[in-house]
This record gives sequence, C-alpha cells and structure tokens, in this order.
Amino acid sequence: MEFADTTPPGPAVPDARVSERATDVVLEAAAANPLSGSNEIETPSSQVVRFAADKPLKLESQQTLAPFQIAYQTYGALNAARTNAILVCHALTGDQYVASKHPVTGKPGWWSTLVGPGKPVDTDRFFVICANILGGCMGSTGPASRSPHTGKIYGLDFPVITIGDMVDAQARLIDHLGIDQLFSVIGGSMGGMQVLEWAARYKDRVYTAVPVATAAWHSAQNIAFHEVGRQAVMADPEWAAGKYQEEGRTPRRGLSVARMAAHITYLSEEALQRKFGRSFQGKGQRTFSFDADFQVESYLRHQGSTFVDRFDPNSYLYITRAMDYFDMAAEHDDVLANAFRGTQTRFCVVSFTSDWLYPTRESKAIVTALNAVAANVSFVEIESDKGHDAFLLEEREFFATMSGFINSAAAKRGIAPARGR
Amino acid sequence: MEFADTTPPGPAVPDARVSERATDVVLEAAAANPLSGSNEIETPSSQVVRFAADKPLKLESQQTLAPFQIAYQTYGALNAARTNAILVCHALTGDQYVASKHPVTGKPGWWSTLVGPGKPVDTDRFFVICANILGGCMGSTGPASRSPHTGKIYGLDFPVITIGDMVDAQARLIDHLGIDQLFSVIGGSMGGMQVLEWAARYKDRVYTAVPVATAAWHSAQNIAFHEVGRQAVMADPEWAAGKYQEEGRTPRRGLSVARMAAHITYLSEEALQRKFGRSFQGKGQRTFSFDADFQVESYLRHQGSTFVDRFDPNSYLYITRAMDYFDMAAEHDDVLANAFRGTQTRFCVVSFTSDWLYPTRESKAIVTALNAVAANVSFVEIESDKGHDAFLLEEREFFATMSGFINSAAAKRGIAPARGR
Repeated sequence: MEFADTTPPGPAVPDARVSERATDVVLEAAAANPLSGSNEIETPSSQVVRFAADKPLKLESQQTLAPFQIAYQTYGALNAARTNAILVCHALTGDQYVASKHPVTGKPGWWSTLVGPGKPVDTDRFFVICANILGGCMGSTGPASRSPHTGKIYGLDFPVITIGDMVDAQARLIDHLGIDQLFSVIGGSMGGMQVLEWAARYKDRVYTAVPVATAAWHSAQNIAFHEVGRQAVMADPEWAAGKYQEEGRTPRRGLSVARMAAHITYLSEEALQRKFGRSFQGKGQRTFSFDADFQVESYLRHQGSTFVDRFDPNSYLYITRAMDYFDMAAEHDDVLANAFRGTQTRFCVVSFTSDWLYPTRESKAIVTALNAVAANVSFVEIESDKGHDAFLLEEREFFATMSGFINSAAAKRGIAPARGR
Repeated sequence: MEFADTTPPGPAVPDARVSERATDVVLEAAAANPLSGSNEIETPSSQVVRFAADKPLKLESQQTLAPFQIAYQTYGALNAARTNAILVCHALTGDQYVASKHPVTGKPGWWSTLVGPGKPVDTDRFFVICANILGGCMGSTGPASRSPHTGKIYGLDFPVITIGDMVDAQARLIDHLGIDQLFSVIGGSMGGMQVLEWAARYKDRVYTAVPVATAAWHSAQNIAFHEVGRQAVMADPEWAAGKYQEEGRTPRRGLSVARMAAHITYLSEEALQRKFGRSFQGKGQRTFSFDADFQVESYLRHQGSTFVDRFDPNSYLYITRAMDYFDMAAEHDDVLANAFRGTQTRFCVVSFTSDWLYPTRESKAIVTALNAVAANVSFVEIESDKGHDAFLLEEREFFATMSGFINSAAAKRGIAPARGR
C-alpha cells in the first residue's frame, strides 16, 4: 500500500496504479502521536508518502534530511501512457489543496478558479498533482514536524532549505507516482520559482513549464519585505527562540504583523484604492482613536489574524528564507541562460501589469534567457490592476492564455481531450 | 523673557525682538523634573515656548490641550520688516533640528543639504524656523510628555491629533515670534501636508508655499503601511498598552519592525537594487541560517535599531494616525479646490519620479485643485531614482528649483539679498 489516505479526496484515484517502492512507507503510525501541535502537520487530510531513512534527501546546504514525508493531493486520472500529469506548485502560504476544500479553513482550493473539471487546467483531461512543499506545515516535513532523531519538534533545528530542495523532494514524489515526464509544471509566485527549478534540474521530465508572476531571483526589495516579516515573528516573545510549540506558546501577533506587511505587497496600489480607498467603517468617520477606523485597516487586521490559524510561524521563516536565497543566475555562473541550456521544454511565461512584487521586467529576464538558448517560449503580459494577487483571481485573459497554451501542447503530446469535449 | 534656551543654538538671535505675551511662559521648571523619560522630551536642547492653560488649543477631535509647549530652532535673523521668515515643517520622524546637529544622534540637521548659509534656503538671507510638531517627542508636547493634570506621562491619554492641529500649534509659535506673514512654508512628506494646511487655514499668513513629495490625502496603501507599523508597536508586550514609560519598559522590537517596514517605502525598488542588490555581507555567501546574510537585511536591521534610540513609540502611533486622517478634500466638502479658494499664496509643488509613497499623480491632484482656483502655481517633477527619500538627498535639479522659486519670490517680496551675494 502506498498512501495514507486519512480522508481521501473524491476524484483522486489514478487509473494506472503507481509502482511500489520499498522505501516509501505509509504513515499511519504518526497519527498515534498525540503530541503533534496540529494534526495537519503530521497526519494531514491528504495523501502522504514517507521516504525512509535509507534514501536521504541531499540538501543544498550539504545537510541531509531523512526520513521525510510529502503530503499531496491529486485530481483526475493518470492515463495509461502516463503522459497527462500536471504538477502544480504552490506559493509561500499555499498548500496541496489547489482545487479542493482546505481542511482547516473550509475554503475552496486556492486555485480552483484555474484547476478543476472543465477549467483551463482540466481535471477531466489531466492528472493534477499538488504537493505541500518541503518546509511547509500542511503535512510535508518542515520545522513544525517532529524530528525522528530527537523526538522533538524540529523548530530551528530543521535545516535551511532552498527552492531547489523543494523541487528535489517533489521529484521523489513524482518517481513514487511512477511518472517519468510531467506534461506540465505550473506555478505562480514562489510556485513559479519551483517551475523554473524543475525546468533547469529535470530537463527531460518537463514537457511544458508555466512560470507565472515570478522571477529568476529575489530582488533586494523582496528580500527586505521578507526580512521585516521574519523580524516581526522573531520579535514576538511568544516565538521563544523557535521553541514555541514545545512551550505551548505561539507568536500570533508577530506572525500576524508579518502577514499584514506581506499582504500589502500582494495588492496593487490601484486595487487597494479601488477596494477600500479612504472608506471608513463602523461609525463612518474618524473616532480619534487607534481603532480600525478605515476599512483597509480592518481588512489587514483580518488577514493577519486568520493567517495565524492556518500557518506555522517557523515555516514562514524557512519558506521566506528559501525565496530570498533563490537566484538561478548565481546557481549557473551568473548567466541565467545557462540554467536552460539544451532544454526541450515548451515555456509559457506570464506576468501581470500591476504586479510590483514580481514586475514584468523580471519575467522578461526569464524570456531573454530562454531566447538565448533558443528555447520554445511564449510570453504574455496580462493587463490587470489587481497586483500580484491577480494570478489567483478570475482573470479572463490569463485563463484564455492558459487554456490555449495547455490545449495546444496537449494536442502535440497526443493527450486525448476530455470525454464529451 | 520668552525662551527657555537650555542650550541656545548659535545663530538664532533675531535682530527684531519678538513681542512678549503674558500667556507664554518659560519652561525652566520642567527641567527640575527628574522623572522625564528623556531630557529631550520635556527640556529639549532647543528653544521652547509654553502656552499656558488659559489659552487652550482647540483640537479637531473637539478636545482641548493646555498647557502645551512647542520646541523649535531658528537659524538666521528676522529682518526689521519681519518679512523674511521661513517655516520649515518636518516629516514623520523628523524634528526641529533641520540644519543643526541632532542632540541625541549627533548627526547633521536632517535638511542641512537644503537649509543653511548659502544653501537654497539661505540662512544668511532668511530667518528659518523649524518646530517639533505637536505630538512629537523632541520637546513639543506629545504622548511622551507628562500631563500637568495627572502628573503622569500622557501615553494613550494624549488626544489624537491631526495635521491641522499641528499647524494651529505652529501658528501660536509664529504669533509668539511676532510674525504676521511667513515668507514661505516649506516641507516634504508629512511636512508637505502641513504646508498645505497652512496655505488653507492661514491664507493671509503664507506668501509662498512649497509642498514637496506629498499628497492632499493619505492613500489606502499608505494607511495600510502605517497600520502595519502601529500593529507592530502594539504587538510588542513591552508596549504595555501604552504605559511602557511608567513601567520602565520600551517596545524596542515592535518599533524597530515598524521602522523597517516604513523604511522600505522610503526607497525606490531601483535604489534598493542599486545600493544592495543581492549582495552578501560577511562570508559573501549563504550561511543557511537566519542571520543577516544579505546587506539589505543588515541595513534594515540597523535602521530599525537606531531609530528606537531617538523616537518615542507612542509618538509614532499618534503621528502616523494624524497622517492617515489627513484628507484635505474631505475637510472641504470633498472638493480639494475649496481648500485654496481665494488664495494669494504662490505655490511651488515638487514631486520625484521614483517616489511610490507619494507619487507624482498626488502632486498633480494638488496642482489641478490650485489651477481650479486660479492660484499662482509652479509644478516640477524631479527625475530621480532615489524614491521618496530623494527630497532629503542631494538632488541638483531639486535644489535648482528651490533656489529659483525662492529667490524670485523673495525679490518680489522685497527681501534683501544676503550681504556679499
């Protein structure tokens, strides 16, 4: 048996059975551990594969990680030729619930606008996989997990990981699922960084790659915002030098401030102005106090306070660090094009006009590098005033781009259309 | 006697003696209070005027404040006609030390590039006044001051004030100095907001007005960033519901995070990229830790930690609140032009191309309103990649603009050139 399906997702049964590997172990034992801070951390509501101690993951830091587990969701069915698999990579605070209800918040999947039956990423045609990243807190091994070596929560003893490490861990999952080549790797923001690493590290295993609203390196301004967030978490005495779980505490206020600061960067100035402007709430006027007089204040406070209910503070530190460390040019002798030399992958690079976190010029740098190695690349800049978050929202032009690119490539790959379409 | 000159600044003796007012009381008594958290708060290293209890300041909140004191610096000499006075208004974290050494940090005046002998705002020609704002923490009455009513530090019992209140308090100082009309009111950022309020509230008392890198209302994004800063301060348990001084504590970490977040907004993305890029410090490579690997991280941490040595956390809350409340259109039946109807003031509006905190379109809205009432207005957008901070830096085109505008208006006003020039 391969999966520990604590609550198996509805449409997730592949029609080709995946191969068994001796080192992949089911996870039911962990469920018995009552000390887990959150059930989702060790025994998530999704499928989980554990990679045993004899096959450690070699990290960029030169440390190794073993055993480790990856939690994931699948949607649709793998075809007999195993050619229709799409890996969706999630962003900083995302998770594997790309197109199904989040087990903690009860909200719809974070990209259910894009992924689902009849959607641009059509789960009636494709076998969609989405895994919680290494370092995450929704079932894949991360700082909130219990170390098998010490029996304690990792906390800051968890090794600092990179985007490349996340991708290497995902590759283990794809091996485990018996898939040689992914039809597509798709992701936005940090998900897009993973797409680029997949295309660079596993050239033969990626038929198409769709990096959306992303960059090949993290800018000084983005590092700066992340550093503010980390300092906000670490400034909270409840963080307790990273040992808050052991001590039964949680740095709610610090993480909330971090989320508030980050959230501003996800929206455009125009979107904030249109959505909130200077509108008052409640009394409709100034209260001459420090209450949330303005709707935008109330909105941000809400974003902060709900985030802490679903996210581990140390995970936030580790994942932002991985993003800051991301620099595909530096990894390849300061020439980004080197990362893609010899690629046969078809790329579709997407940016949004009002995204100031990953502005279009960052996407253009990727396109320039791909052109330099004569890669097959489409580039689309979507007109939107919604800022970075646009990639998660209903953007008709974006969806049309995705449908067009995916369907055209799928036809070339010989993937059958969905029945009845 | 008018002034409590605890350490009188060098060139600050007007050649026309200012008039005496019965309600303006010297402040030496306060120096005897050993409980003041900082000497600069109650007995600053600058001139101070105290306005007595019989002339309370009526605030926009409908509360009154009395007694209160205003700390200020002057540079140059008032001419016999009393026509050469320039009021410089400072920004959020500024103070009265516009062109002389800061008594806490020992650094040069914050606008000493612009203000001084032979500088565009020439203290050999003009009598320059700069006052710490109401709500500040460098000698003017604010939340860090001791309430004369309770004997305790105000803290959150200090009334929430507005930009208009700050300006009304400054007007008391200008009365006290015996000046009917200011030759100019000049300020950047929040200083520019004060300039606009001066021009609207005291039309006959402002010959020229120079609002720089500012706006007539605070945008949703700017409110959002301020709210993050306030939440960071208030999230720090050392803030102690605003009573940290009484309890001998100080929310250093919270205020430091607030400053870090704000500081990012003062710089352009380009400036951050040029200044720091992805440069490592120390070991010159990733340490796979949460140390400040990147120079930009180290820089921000430094900005945060030095700020807390010179600024009161509650002052930060009050001043950001005043900025958020600022909306000159709302004050005038939602028509900004109404604020300036009938004005005879000559305006010079200045913005900077890479300022994303107060972008050029905000300045253009001011210019449009001024044009609508046929005001005399010049508008200059300065090409700069330094972001909002550009107004504080050596920007040749900006200085040329200031010199040209000031000298031309001074000639019209009949102010004599500096001797020897």
